[in-house]
Amino acid sequence: MSKTRKDAPADETAKNAQLLIKAGFIHKEMAGVYAYLPLGLKVVENIKQIVREEMNAIGGQELIMTGLQAQELWLSTDRWDDELVDIWFKTKLKNGADVGLAWSHEEPITNMMKNHVSSYRDLPSYVYQFQTKMRNETRAKSGIMRCREFVMKDLYSYSLTEKDHNKYYQKVMTCYHKIFERVGLDHITYPTFASGGAFTQFSHEFQTICDAGEDIIYVDEAKNIAINKEVFTDEVIAQLGLNKTDLVEKKAAEVGNIFSFGSTKSEQLGLYFDDKDGSQKPVILGSYGIGVTRLMGVIVEAFSDEKGIVWPENIAPYKVYLAALGEDAEVTEAANNLYDKLEAAGISVLYDDLEAHPGEKLNDADLIGLPYRVVVSKKTVSEGKVELKARNSEETTLVSADELLAKLKV
Amino acid sequence: MSKTRKDAPADETAKNAQLLIKAGFIHKEMAGVYAYLPLGLKVVENIKQIVREEMNAIGGQELIMTGLQAQELWLSTDRWDDELVDIWFKTKLKNGADVGLAWSHEEPITNMMKNHVSSYRDLPSYVYQFQTKMRNETRAKSGIMRCREFVMKDLYSYSLTEKDHNKYYQKVMTCYHKIFERVGLDHITYPTFASGGAFTQFSHEFQTICDAGEDIIYVDEAKNIAINKEVFTDEVIAQLGLNKTDLVEKKAAEVGNIFSFGSTKSEQLGLYFDDKDGSQKPVILGSYGIGVTRLMGVIVEAFSDEKGIVWPENIAPYKVYLAALGEDAEVTEAANNLYDKLEAAGISVLYDDLEAHPGEKLNDADLIGLPYRVVVSKKTVSEGKVELKARNSEETTLVSADELLAKLKV
Repeated sequence: MSKTRKDAPADETAKNAQLLIKAGFIHKEMAGVYAYLPLGLKVVENIKQIVREEMNAIGGQELIMTGLQAQELWLSTDRWDDELVDIWFKTKLKNGADVGLAWSHEEPITNMMKNHVSSYRDLPSYVYQFQTKMRNETRAKSGIMRCREFVMKDLYSYSLTEKDHNKYYQKVMTCYHKIFERVGLDHITYPTFASGGAFTQFSHEFQTICDAGEDIIYVDEAKNIAINKEVFTDEVIAQLGLNKTDLVEKKAAEVGNIFSFGSTKSEQLGLYFDDKDGSQKPVILGSYGIGVTRLMGVIVEAFSDEKGIVWPENIAPYKVYLAALGEDAEVTEAANNLYDKLEAAGISVLYDDLEAHPGEKLNDADLIGLPYRVVVSKKTVSEGKVELKARNSEETTLVSADELLAKLKV
Repeated sequence: MSKTRKDAPADETAKNAQLLIKAGFIHKEMAGVYAYLPLGLKVVENIKQIVREEMNAIGGQELIMTGLQAQELWLSTDRWDDELVDIWFKTKLKNGADVGLAWSHEEPITNMMKNHVSSYRDLPSYVYQFQTKMRNETRAKSGIMRCREFVMKDLYSYSLTEKDHNKYYQKVMTCYHKIFERVGLDHITYPTFASGGAFTQFSHEFQTICDAGEDIIYVDEAKNIAINKEVFTDEVIAQLGLNKTDLVEKKAAEVGNIFSFGSTKSEQLGLYFDDKDGSQKPVILGSYGIGVTRLMGVIVEAFSDEKGIVWPENIAPYKVYLAALGEDAEVTEAANNLYDKLEAAGISVLYDDLEAHPGEKLNDADLIGLPYRVVVSKKTVSEGKVELKARNSEETTLVSADELLAKLKV
């Protein structure tokens, strides 16, 4: 149903949202709140599927918690008060009881785990979800990179000991590198030391170099590591064994984060297990986020040019943009046949068979940014060929339908 | 990570939620608000996938709208006021602006379509989503059948003319029958005439006979049709060509509904198209819901016995429950091998390899309700066999691993 547009809304200043709106991937409902149209939803699902496969590979079990949150849980960990957590959206039940809208899920998941963890035999346990989070951001100005409503993957690890926890933490670090590699960003994404909050000195972020990012990091390229400005002191640099002269300041977007909570939350919420020796111990908690829709925005920021988006093939909503140019019956028939052939071969195709000026169709192809553009025109039909162009190349080639299939099936 | 439980929470009176909580499919966050644990999420996704396939088959395009809703849109159709719509959850942005939490999406989708529909060439357009709806219900007491937060599939049809709309409406009716057939409920599900609201005399509901349902309907079995109590008058019976004596009163749960909005919402929100003759006309709107999580609850109500749930095979989270009984090394090895064989054959298995009493494992198998139970024990190993039992039968048979694979692959 989606159509490309000449302009994004006037108040939309972020490149990612401008391109995604113009290309028909998203719709702006209000500042920081976007709907995902058919093309956009496919991208979100492609990203989710990559993340899901890697989560499952490290023993994660998928579930889905709730958006409405009970006040009591958050009172018990001192995270309900608006003075302490300033991004709550809150609302009321009919009976007047306050409820919150989920901005994170450590509390409810840890509380839920009390029903499933009682013995050392029940641990470790790793659970994750893709959840719509709501955060009452004061400013939402980076398109889909900072939203009031967005999709996040959050994984929670429940471990027997600090040692087990640290092992799994490292496993997730490796897993995150794989994920960012698969979405095409690993070469500009750095594990970054950041503030650890109440529980540890540092947390780890994954930061992607990005002009539209809101963070400043200091990158040691050779060591493939960075430090967030918030903890960038001479003391920390020395502690991490880095040299100030090797560190380059960059703008970056936080695409992932990892927190260790130790046993604090388990103690606050009452998640204990009976150990082998009969003693009762609190469970060790870690939480591991990836901003799925933010990642989509960062990908657009990283892979676009003056004509539009240039989707990495793993993420693209379709592999091929097929355009029939002109109203000629022969052209239409040839394009229809080609569409059927590509689909039969399992190659996903966005078929633009609308009546439109050829120039518009070619502009749309660039704007939407699928990896390959295939054009069928009177000229190509007369030569028994089709025209193929990769989005990231200027070169067009005339190929037969069979050559095209062979090339695209690789 | 999930474990079965001896008891559901004391305040949980609905059979569906009691069974689903005890069997480890869901977790009660608060009244009318449930999380879906790994087993439960698989069921939800199986139902969604059936609905998705049937939506795509009638030209639906999947997208996802937002949970946060702008007040202006709903003011323009007079559905913002709590006096007129009494199930709103509302909250506030940092700047004090009121926003609502989506309980339905006709307004935002119709408003969004203004960017994509301007000419008769852009119609018809059919879009649908699986969306988490929030409704501030005064009472939430039917487990996952009436929730404050729940998953709904909503399809919206945008048609050129009333005639086109009516044709599509019939297509959706047929499609809904297919969906309820695939989830195993068609034999007790009736298209039901109900109140049409402001726009038409009747709407259509799909009502499934269910003791835990909140509706009363009058069923004509022979004609496979029903009337909701809310419009059950002599006049309506006559108008529909039915006889009062053929109509039997039943309790039922509304699993689907279909509304015609005519052109009213399009006029209120400004969704017009340029017709072939140059005139401007409002688009004709229909909306078509299926309560996905409610459907899961109704399936549990319909398919369960005193021992637990009896999932239809299309919906079950796994096909096989594999239990190794006893701690014997030979048994464990045989069960491990069988698990690998089944997985390799593409047969989904829930493998219970925890230390537990054999009786507990067999009870869990019944409670969780997968279509087949396979037991490996010292006795079956000594005979070179495994024990197979279908959940909906009392008969157990000893079969070889190969016979098992052949049987389950059908």
